[in-house]
Amino acid sequence: MANYVFGVDIGGTTVKLGLFDIGGNVLDKWEIPTRTENGGANILPDIAASVRAKMSDKSIDKEDVAGVGVGAPGPVDGEGIIHKAVNLGWGEMNLKKELTTLLDGMRVEGGNDANVAALGEMWKGGGQGHKNLVAVTLGTGVGGGIIINGKIMTGATGSGGEIGHIHVEDHETEACGCGNYGCLEEYASATGITRLANRQLQASDKPSALRQGEVSAKTVFDAVKAGDELAIEVAKQFGDYLGKGLAVIAGVVNPEIFVIGGGVSKAGEVLFEYIRPAFDKTVFHGCRDTQFALATLGNDAGIYGAAKMVLD
Amino acid sequence: MANYVFGVDIGGTTVKLGLFDIGGNVLDKWEIPTRTENGGANILPDIAASVRAKMSDKSIDKEDVAGVGVGAPGPVDGEGIIHKAVNLGWGEMNLKKELTTLLDGMRVEGGNDANVAALGEMWKGGGQGHKNLVAVTLGTGVGGGIIINGKIMTGATGSGGEIGHIHVEDHETEACGCGNYGCLEEYASATGITRLANRQLQASDKPSALRQGEVSAKTVFDAVKAGDELAIEVAKQFGDYLGKGLAVIAGVVNPEIFVIGGGVSKAGEVLFEYIRPAFDKTVFHGCRDTQFALATLGNDAGIYGAAKMVLD
Repeated sequence: MANYVFGVDIGGTTVKLGLFDIGGNVLDKWEIPTRTENGGANILPDIAASVRAKMSDKSIDKEDVAGVGVGAPGPVDGEGIIHKAVNLGWGEMNLKKELTTLLDGMRVEGGNDANVAALGEMWKGGGQGHKNLVAVTLGTGVGGGIIINGKIMTGATGSGGEIGHIHVEDHETEACGCGNYGCLEEYASATGITRLANRQLQASDKPSALRQGEVSAKTVFDAVKAGDELAIEVAKQFGDYLGKGLAVIAGVVNPEIFVIGGGVSKAGEVLFEYIRPAFDKTVFHGCRDTQFALATLGNDAGIYGAAKMVLD
Repeated sequence: MANYVFGVDIGGTTVKLGLFDIGGNVLDKWEIPTRTENGGANILPDIAASVRAKMSDKSIDKEDVAGVGVGAPGPVDGEGIIHKAVNLGWGEMNLKKELTTLLDGMRVEGGNDANVAALGEMWKGGGQGHKNLVAVTLGTGVGGGIIINGKIMTGATGSGGEIGHIHVEDHETEACGCGNYGCLEEYASATGITRLANRQLQASDKPSALRQGEVSAKTVFDAVKAGDELAIEVAKQFGDYLGKGLAVIAGVVNPEIFVIGGGVSKAGEVLFEYIRPAFDKTVFHGCRDTQFALATLGNDAGIYGAAKMVLD
């Protein structure tokens, strides 16, 4: 019986690594740069070398490691094949097989970074005690990860849980980064909230703290907490889009809980005051008891979830 | 190794039963009345008696039966507990345990009827060859069943796949049967199409075949096939709501295929001409290759799927 497991979260600029005991206690955390040159050919060898170095450092035998879990920014299917990772320079690759070869047959599991983070939040974060959850990451974009019966739902081509790009507005005139118009991400991400705020500042004559200084998701929710009327209008628009979007997701997958993370979630529980009204109004009655919680692992969700993949 | 399996589909007026070999060939099909009086207390005993009688008839030993799968009209969770079946008079009940007791310990599996029908279409119907599919039933209402990696996705409380009640219209003034406003079912069911048609007949002065005789989903699509302009407007509205709704579902669960069944699907492939434009326009690019097919098992999907539950 192995005592250790590694969790790896590959980002566009750094790779985060964690060494855990099999109870999920983090024993060590570190980072290495992500070398994206040459089609990202060095990334997996760098990870393998870093894992080996740590094992040697800590005098951990191969037999004492349950395996290495890896989250990567791209669609990863149930076989551990990543279909494209633009930020890493990767095309289609068998992540699981390549890394296991580099690690002399050590067990490797691979998943999409947002899905893996969702698993992390289930294991040790805001979703503890639940087996069916949807993690929603409100960052520069909107990401998502869906966990069904304790397992990542990858979908047919690794696009399961891509909830940032569900269509929520028919009348949008600006394109989303994905090329479509009216995606959830255009209203519920940090960028989206900023855009909603700038539109509202133009459309309204109301005085607002947002008329001075920077307009961002943070300044909007700071102003909401200070009772700023215009900021509250923006928060209502945000909450209306997100609440309705999450209600649809609830009707489809019927999770026990939504776990909300990402930079926007730093605003805290106040988010739920704006999300719940539209959610409660439009959700199927069988899903009305769905809970909402904040994510708690921050940027470490990925390494936790990656480690957990190996332990299942 | 058992050679036989029973599939049972409990409806509000009749219970359909099927005897299958384990390859999925139906050997016999029959029906018994659903006795809903006394809180539906007779339903499971009637089913058990009917199964026993068939075994005796065909001289099939208990050891030669893999088990009995049952689909029922209500939310059924992963443990086989049905949380309420209004049409049967049932409150919360352990379907699986109760029936297995009535059958002297024979293996029983239970599921929601729409989910079970989805499994049937995957096994022997329009979704053959796929392991990730969403079945959409366009009948009096809109039902759905989601299959992930070959298994029913029940959700936390058995409401997984309740896609008829996802919110698709903010400006609806008539309530859905569920109490909400603007559910997909209000536009994409047989009843919904009739309603859209009656609205359009009132709102427009255009001549139309629909101005004579009955207005129904069938007459609307018959008129569409005959080139009736007003009927085509109705079909476009229907397709716009359903196409956008399915695009959202695709973004969430990323199925390989949608299998469309129910009475409305008798209109045939013409449905896809109206569903695909809105689907293609709004779906996440990673899900653009999602296929569409018609269901092929009709009212037998339930008994097939029920049998399949036991064989997994």
